[in-house]
Amino acid sequence: MAFEIHSQLLADCHRLGKLPLCHVLLHKNGRIPWFILVPQTDVTDLLDLPEAHRSAAMAEAAAVSEFVKKTLGWAKVNFAAIGNVVPQLHLHVVGRKPGDACWPAPIWGNLNETREYSAAELNNIIELLARDCDFQRG
Amino acid sequence: MAFEIHSQLLADCHRLGKLPLCHVLLHKNGRIPWFILVPQTDVTDLLDLPEAHRSAAMAEAAAVSEFVKKTLGWAKVNFAAIGNVVPQLHLHVVGRKPGDACWPAPIWGNLNETREYSAAELNNIIELLARDCDFQRG
Repeated sequence: MAFEIHSQLLADCHRLGKLPLCHVLLHKNGRIPWFILVPQTDVTDLLDLPEAHRSAAMAEAAAVSEFVKKTLGWAKVNFAAIGNVVPQLHLHVVGRKPGDACWPAPIWGNLNETREYSAAELNNIIELLARDCDFQRG
Repeated sequence: MAFEIHSQLLADCHRLGKLPLCHVLLHKNGRIPWFILVPQTDVTDLLDLPEAHRSAAMAEAAAVSEFVKKTLGWAKVNFAAIGNVVPQLHLHVVGRKPGDACWPAPIWGNLNETREYSAAELNNIIELLARDCDFQRG
């Protein structure tokens, strides 16, 4: 069975490519760097993953967090696995800094300002991910 | 240097005891089982923890998640490390189910109904944690 990313995630996000375990999406709202990792699994809660899968998913989240901090220059990263609306397991890795568009509120439901990424910005992010992480575009 | 839990967490939560790495708090709003784990570290972002510490913290979060599901009977667990207001690293492990007091919204900022735990309820949770997890009260 081919693994399919939930249609709501595909509607909300740009699909950038893949880390070894997780598909890498970027929320279309470019006000804040909001990455969403979708591990290739049918387990729905992060803390129910078998330990090896959980560790692999967290290592990939940590790599994206480092990317957000060091390459994109955001001071802090919020991390969450919620999934009350979209049941497919997905991990939020969100760059934050004091004074950002919804600081200090959590991003979910509170990011009211929007901004679209340009194609050049998306390509640049993809190139930097391929440079800095074990990332395959597409 | 003694490790001190942030005063805002102590104001918002009951302090239940300790797992090997994390202090275990329970948010005072008893509408939803909202555990907060405070790893004994001065790192502020979960994804910045060294791998061994991150894995240990996640294993403890997984144990509390299993407790919330199997012992307390909540179907789903939301997990997050945010820390935009309280900078000390703390991990939210939150029982959720369809129809709960703020379903399907994330709990942060959306749990408007309140309920206080009784002393008997708190003692019961502490006894069950000691039975089911590598947990020391106090």
